[in-house]
Amino acid sequence: MAGEFDFISWIRTQQPSSALVPLAAGDDLAIVNWPADLMLVGVDQVLDGVHFDSARHGPRDIGRKAMNRNLSDCAAMACVPVAAVASVALPRDRGIDYAKQLYLGLRSAADAFDCQIIGGDTGSWDGRLVVTVTILGRADGIEPVRRSGAKVGDTVHVTGPLGGSILGRHMNFTPRIQWARQLARELPITAMIDLSDGLSRDLGHIARASGVGAVIDAAAVPVHEDAIELRRDGISPLDHALHDGEDYELLFTAAPNHSTMLQIGRIIEEPGLWLQQPDATRIPLDPGGWEHTL
Amino acid sequence: MAGEFDFISWIRTQQPSSALVPLAAGDDLAIVNWPADLMLVGVDQVLDGVHFDSARHGPRDIGRKAMNRNLSDCAAMACVPVAAVASVALPRDRGIDYAKQLYLGLRSAADAFDCQIIGGDTGSWDGRLVVTVTILGRADGIEPVRRSGAKVGDTVHVTGPLGGSILGRHMNFTPRIQWARQLARELPITAMIDLSDGLSRDLGHIARASGVGAVIDAAAVPVHEDAIELRRDGISPLDHALHDGEDYELLFTAAPNHSTMLQIGRIIEEPGLWLQQPDATRIPLDPGGWEHTL
Repeated sequence: MAGEFDFISWIRTQQPSSALVPLAAGDDLAIVNWPADLMLVGVDQVLDGVHFDSARHGPRDIGRKAMNRNLSDCAAMACVPVAAVASVALPRDRGIDYAKQLYLGLRSAADAFDCQIIGGDTGSWDGRLVVTVTILGRADGIEPVRRSGAKVGDTVHVTGPLGGSILGRHMNFTPRIQWARQLARELPITAMIDLSDGLSRDLGHIARASGVGAVIDAAAVPVHEDAIELRRDGISPLDHALHDGEDYELLFTAAPNHSTMLQIGRIIEEPGLWLQQPDATRIPLDPGGWEHTL
Repeated sequence: MAGEFDFISWIRTQQPSSALVPLAAGDDLAIVNWPADLMLVGVDQVLDGVHFDSARHGPRDIGRKAMNRNLSDCAAMACVPVAAVASVALPRDRGIDYAKQLYLGLRSAADAFDCQIIGGDTGSWDGRLVVTVTILGRADGIEPVRRSGAKVGDTVHVTGPLGGSILGRHMNFTPRIQWARQLARELPITAMIDLSDGLSRDLGHIARASGVGAVIDAAAVPVHEDAIELRRDGISPLDHALHDGEDYELLFTAAPNHSTMLQIGRIIEEPGLWLQQPDATRIPLDPGGWEHTL
């Protein structure tokens, strides 16, 4: 049976050298020459049976998702991912080759954005698989876009069709980093979030943080073909688009009359979320997305 | 049942405001005004049944240990801990009060070193408890002390008695940050590590990274009273001191004739580790400490 230190030795052979990181995995801590810039930091874990199913999803897909969820948080702030550290709680029966595949999945996602994996921790145990990634990003010339800047009259937009990601997209998506950077550079974006918890819940995060409300135009919500495919479960495609999680598209608000692309609603003074139906009546839009209960 | 977002709201009430962190938990990422300095980064997880036993250890003790292991890595590099992010995979039956106690344990350890917890991720699941901490430190005027600088002729030292931490000290220890900073400032320290895997294994890390060997004087190894207490298990107190893990004292090498405090051996050219016995004979010192097998 291979040991943790064999795995660390293997990882060291996989790491490119870098001026940013004079000392990567293998000491007590990695050393980073952080550039003179704001640093953005977040952590996100994926849990077997919650965010993936290790009986169905392979280790490369699981590693990729773990990294991509963090890269999607970078997109949500319009920052550039620079470096990450990863930890893995590995069931005892999986072995070193499984751990290597997890690492290669993490790497494939990070490499797509020139983000380096500079440290980690691997432990085997009698429990289920957990992969945790901490991401470090930098502003690189663009003020980070928070959730709290939406103003009354702003328009509400998404970057793609929503709903039904459970059919497979939740494991394999492209973090909208380039799109976020371009939007934040070219438009007066006032607030942004990535759609992980579902439109109704994530829009609620923006509205509450900004002290405003929002009305969504039901006819304007882009419904993904996966949401239509899922209609058989008795929930309408629109409800899937409004409440399903893990689309990993961006939801953002912009100053009025600047962006008409995929506009789905607007910010209003009255608190709460509302759905404007085709007959022009409004009904409350209650959050129906994913929330961990503790 | 309380939700993840109630927990995040509660955490926000617990966070002091800070010039370093203009935006902490509550957005997609925290924003940090990183000072112009080297950044040191590491991640370390604690797993139920491996690093603690949640049937015996309370959530405050578990949170404190999770943070203190990372702070001990800062000690090993002689850096100053600045900020941390933490993630928790929480068994479904534990509830929000348990999560709050975990957070307060993390905070009690971090507060002792003015280290801020600036972000996190909490998820409930059907698995066992995992607490993962990522630590960010800075050099603050002292060149980080690596494992790789030990030279032939250097003396080998430890900061305290070893062995038997399983009796309780492994859950409740003080990271040797002040000691590390003072040592690195005042002495020609050449390599350093914190004793988490056990003396024989951690000294092996220094020896391999430095391309040297080491000989330990059996009579000079400081044996903790817990190691003596454990004698009943048939393993000698010296063997406990040599091989037990989780003492969280510092093991360091220094240029010759500079430090005689708790000197336990010296660095030699011949690769490998050796134990010099009271009769002056040498026997190989094989690593007997903790290693995760994958």
